[in-house]
Amino acid sequence: MANTVLSAKRFLDSHQPGKWDISYTKLNLQKPVPSDIVISRSCVPKPIDCLAREVGLMSDEVELYGKTKAKVQLDIIKRLQAQPDGKYVVVTGITPTPLGEGKSTTTIGLVQALGAHMKLNVFACVRQPSQGPTFGIKGGAAGGGYSQVIPMEEFNLHLTGDIHAITAANNLVAAAIDARMFHEATQSDKALYNRLVPLSGGQRQFSAIQINRLKKLGIEKTDPTTLTEEEITRFARLDIDPESVTWQRVLDTNDRFLRKITIGQSPTEKGYTREAQFDITVASEIMAVLALTSSLEDMRLRLAKMVVATSRSGEPITTEDLGVSGALAVLMRDAIKPNLMQTLEGTPVFVHAGPFANIAHGNSSILADKIALKLVGPEGFVVTEAGFGADIGMEKFFNIKCRYSGLRPHVVVLVATVRALKMHGGGPTVTAGMPLPKEYVEENLPLLEKGCSNMRKQIENAKHFGVPVVVAVNAFKTDTEAELDLICNMAKTAGAFDAVRCSHWAEGGAGAVALGQAVQRASEAPSNFKFLYDLPIVDKIRIIAQKIYGADDIELVFFFFFFFLCVCVCVCVVIVKPVFWDLLSNKIIGFSNLPICMAKTHLSLSHEADKKGVPTGFILPIRDIRASVGAGFLFPLVGTMPTIPGLPTRPCFYDIDLDPETEQVNGLF
Amino acid sequence: MANTVLSAKRFLDSHQPGKWDISYTKLNLQKPVPSDIVISRSCVPKPIDCLAREVGLMSDEVELYGKTKAKVQLDIIKRLQAQPDGKYVVVTGITPTPLGEGKSTTTIGLVQALGAHMKLNVFACVRQPSQGPTFGIKGGAAGGGYSQVIPMEEFNLHLTGDIHAITAANNLVAAAIDARMFHEATQSDKALYNRLVPLSGGQRQFSAIQINRLKKLGIEKTDPTTLTEEEITRFARLDIDPESVTWQRVLDTNDRFLRKITIGQSPTEKGYTREAQFDITVASEIMAVLALTSSLEDMRLRLAKMVVATSRSGEPITTEDLGVSGALAVLMRDAIKPNLMQTLEGTPVFVHAGPFANIAHGNSSILADKIALKLVGPEGFVVTEAGFGADIGMEKFFNIKCRYSGLRPHVVVLVATVRALKMHGGGPTVTAGMPLPKEYVEENLPLLEKGCSNMRKQIENAKHFGVPVVVAVNAFKTDTEAELDLICNMAKTAGAFDAVRCSHWAEGGAGAVALGQAVQRASEAPSNFKFLYDLPIVDKIRIIAQKIYGADDIELVFFFFFFFLCVCVCVCVVIVKPVFWDLLSNKIIGFSNLPICMAKTHLSLSHEADKKGVPTGFILPIRDIRASVGAGFLFPLVGTMPTIPGLPTRPCFYDIDLDPETEQVNGLF
Repeated sequence: MANTVLSAKRFLDSHQPGKWDISYTKLNLQKPVPSDIVISRSCVPKPIDCLAREVGLMSDEVELYGKTKAKVQLDIIKRLQAQPDGKYVVVTGITPTPLGEGKSTTTIGLVQALGAHMKLNVFACVRQPSQGPTFGIKGGAAGGGYSQVIPMEEFNLHLTGDIHAITAANNLVAAAIDARMFHEATQSDKALYNRLVPLSGGQRQFSAIQINRLKKLGIEKTDPTTLTEEEITRFARLDIDPESVTWQRVLDTNDRFLRKITIGQSPTEKGYTREAQFDITVASEIMAVLALTSSLEDMRLRLAKMVVATSRSGEPITTEDLGVSGALAVLMRDAIKPNLMQTLEGTPVFVHAGPFANIAHGNSSILADKIALKLVGPEGFVVTEAGFGADIGMEKFFNIKCRYSGLRPHVVVLVATVRALKMHGGGPTVTAGMPLPKEYVEENLPLLEKGCSNMRKQIENAKHFGVPVVVAVNAFKTDTEAELDLICNMAKTAGAFDAVRCSHWAEGGAGAVALGQAVQRASEAPSNFKFLYDLPIVDKIRIIAQKIYGADDIELVFFFFFFFLCVCVCVCVVIVKPVFWDLLSNKIIGFSNLPICMAKTHLSLSHEADKKGVPTGFILPIRDIRASVGAGFLFPLVGTMPTIPGLPTRPCFYDIDLDPETEQVNGLF
Repeated sequence: MANTVLSAKRFLDSHQPGKWDISYTKLNLQKPVPSDIVISRSCVPKPIDCLAREVGLMSDEVELYGKTKAKVQLDIIKRLQAQPDGKYVVVTGITPTPLGEGKSTTTIGLVQALGAHMKLNVFACVRQPSQGPTFGIKGGAAGGGYSQVIPMEEFNLHLTGDIHAITAANNLVAAAIDARMFHEATQSDKALYNRLVPLSGGQRQFSAIQINRLKKLGIEKTDPTTLTEEEITRFARLDIDPESVTWQRVLDTNDRFLRKITIGQSPTEKGYTREAQFDITVASEIMAVLALTSSLEDMRLRLAKMVVATSRSGEPITTEDLGVSGALAVLMRDAIKPNLMQTLEGTPVFVHAGPFANIAHGNSSILADKIALKLVGPEGFVVTEAGFGADIGMEKFFNIKCRYSGLRPHVVVLVATVRALKMHGGGPTVTAGMPLPKEYVEENLPLLEKGCSNMRKQIENAKHFGVPVVVAVNAFKTDTEAELDLICNMAKTAGAFDAVRCSHWAEGGAGAVALGQAVQRASEAPSNFKFLYDLPIVDKIRIIAQKIYGADDIELVFFFFFFFLCVCVCVCVVIVKPVFWDLLSNKIIGFSNLPICMAKTHLSLSHEADKKGVPTGFILPIRDIRASVGAGFLFPLVGTMPTIPGLPTRPCFYDIDLDPETEQVNGLF
């Protein structure tokens, strides 16, 4: 320990924050480009403690997890408090298609360019992939070609256990809810109280969490023997309405048969069955808390105010009421620290928080971005990735993440490809494994031009926020010069600051230098950041629907379980009436200030996944609305969408295997 | 990397395996003994890389996980191949009572004595605790008082993610089973085949795992276009009988409402509902595979042959048939490496595999024991812990673990306490939080003498295996001299090699030196190890029931889903008839050689938890029998026993919290 402290001191003396002494890893480019895993393995990663030193981290700020991953302690924020932030770039895309646009690949290619080629301090901040899709349809998410996070198997599997910690924490809450309802249903008030505040050494004592509950109930007592019978009842009986439970169990597995289940059917549960469901772990509110929190203390507070249900009299029931909030903080103690990894060219990457910008907010963590912005210093760049298309991930990045972080982005990079735009233009559907229709491999300018409408709309969406947009045209070998030119021209006409073709997939950072330069120029352009909304609830939803998705209006088709009010309002409205909304908004206490996290398909600007391009003339249906009070957003569900994916007939796992001799992972891509 | 290799070489030159240069941590003993967490925090752990070096591990054999935990690579087994093994000691106990006997504490106290005080090379091999009980009733499992694994919060929470990896792997299998049944039910043979062997670049290709399935079906083809229609049907259609699925989902949470559930109730699953259940993760067959495997290659094979169901025609369906076996090996790639931690006095500990010797086999891993035995060298000691009482954990240690490892233990340490034996003698029940009845805090020799029957029986049980038994009497401050003497005398009369009182809880290793010396002497005594059985199936179960539990006989009260035979036999027999069993045994192919892993309550020698002491005159009911073919044992279920615990009215989590300032975990014990 003495050694560590000594080395930290020596380091501080010799080292200025923001001045990096970093070595880059040289790529040995092959043609044709080998498979992702072959490239990933051909590069030896720098020992992660070396990289940590190179980017200005002190040895006692870093916890190694094997030789290629490390967690970074939050103390560093204090140490670098006075350091000005670097430039903040968010990478987003056009509406995704089955053809893949290469958003992660572009994020990594861009940082390889800015770092290894333009010699700027740069960090990529990306999200930890969910293991559901890794073994299901999508495969891994480490980038591709010569623009990857390595080692990709470490990146794609377990990482340092953050998602597992969320699963454990989330399901402890779920178990606590059902166990509590069961114990309350089968015990008298007195028995409940005696068990909740048990004798220990002949005395009863409240735990700190129980004193918080007493305070919430307005009972200013700390001696368990002094409670009146009425106070005992109020304290001991949460009286959860089983119908009101909004907290779901989670797994990081594509297990579609858990989408709707009946629980409690064992005779030991004495007939207290109810319907429930599992979601994918990354959709848990705890994941959103992790992504949006600013410190350990803030996380502890957010984890305590998560609302899980309402009582029969309409009171919101929180994790603090269940007594489980402290345990959640303990389970999340390590997960809050961002994970350090590296790109193929040896530039640093933070991997933190999770994906699924359709059913979650799907952005990497505020903490990772903040630490990275300090580490790169004022001339450096932090490139962070927002999930799916700009209507989903970027909109949430601005309206939710930037709102909570206070950070203001300098540039939006919007990734587009010729093929995907052709599909938006009405190109034929693509069947996995079948040769691509000729529309996608031969020049077709009219189709491309038509599809550019989607790009134009997404540029507009970014411009709503007042931030300059650079379009990255991720080139494929079958794209023609005329096609690439067309996209660039149309992007500029639509108001992009610049539009640049890039070839980082085939060439690594060298293929994204032009993009890097455009981003650098854009970061110096005037940025006039503003939020899209700052309005009562219905208008927030409508404004997103109209301005971002291009809807005519929104409609409500749902039962609204309103667990914030003292009454449970069941509403079934077809067209929203402003009068109704005004009434509702006025009643909502502590609700109207929360931003909106739409749960909407990522495959279309509208709520219908098969509507490509820029759908018009549609009304956006809102099926339900949930509140993530700990995370700090409202969660309208648009249309019907499963919150846990399924496995296809032939999941990715068929190809995945371990070589017991070399210990190599095969088949991950 | 170059540095690592160099240091490893230098290390090899200067270092002889088995010769340790280890520094011990001095305890600063306080009276009265502070709480476990206060003691744990008062000791600064050695940096784990230092400890690794001290016990002869090379730097490239160790993967650090933070500063206090590390994983040890399996390569070391090859490096130390020629090194003779150390002495092998297993710690077990009398039948557990709510009073706690201190088995983990004794394991840790003993290694602290052998190491820090007797200056012998010594390793403790213990199991990773399940987070279910950590947040439920039991609390942590790091030992107690001045005999603990530190830091206890790292030990009790997540560790390096092994149990999380098992949860992920287990549930991927479960999702694959239900998804496969669904896809088969909703697609034609041709469509199934086309999806299972999809076109890629215009061609179809089998994955390696699919070729294994073809071989199993006797189809010696590798070109997907050459299969006949009949072969396509046989290959593509597993035709799983939903009623036959034995594979359950798991969580490492005490969630009783998942004991019996109905899944598939979402409209997306088109009515294919079925009953299912969740077990606690540590009861997963994959945990048993982890504990019993001998290498990465062996693990890969075991993970492939796990049987999850039978087809409608009675064929066993394995994880390999599902195509998921390789992915399982990949998910378990890091979990197979034992985790290095340390005791309060700085001696090394391997933490690997899981508890629950009642519903699982509940022993630490063979790999950890094997590596430790090489590291300590021929004069050193490895002390491994078996779960619950000697009738459960120790019986499984001998009959299952030693059978697969080939290792032969030198000494059994049986832990007993005055209080627990008094309870076995018929002492009054104890209510949590209430003062202990006077029987337990005042001298009561007749009650103690009566209760010693349980200890006598457990000594006999150990002696069935031909290994010398040392009884460790874990002393409490209220125990009298006469009581402690009585136990020691009765233990020796019952055939123990020695019986020693110890006070390691209050004094650390210094309080267990007498025990250490007795163990050292016993390890030099002649040991005559033999298995309890090597017989056809029914006799194995009966011999355990009669010889270990003291039952008169066994009876079958169950529906026997026999997924190894080509027919599904439903048997409802009351008293076992040898003729029936002989018939059955003859039909069982590849079944009769497997050892038995009884699922029985740990709270009594019988199947009834409230029967203390040595129950007699009972017939042991066998409710069901399952086969863990990957792990390699048969799994008879004795009586009714939940395979996932529940949360009490006031779970441990009420006391657990994180101090956001100091980052300390409070309330874990």
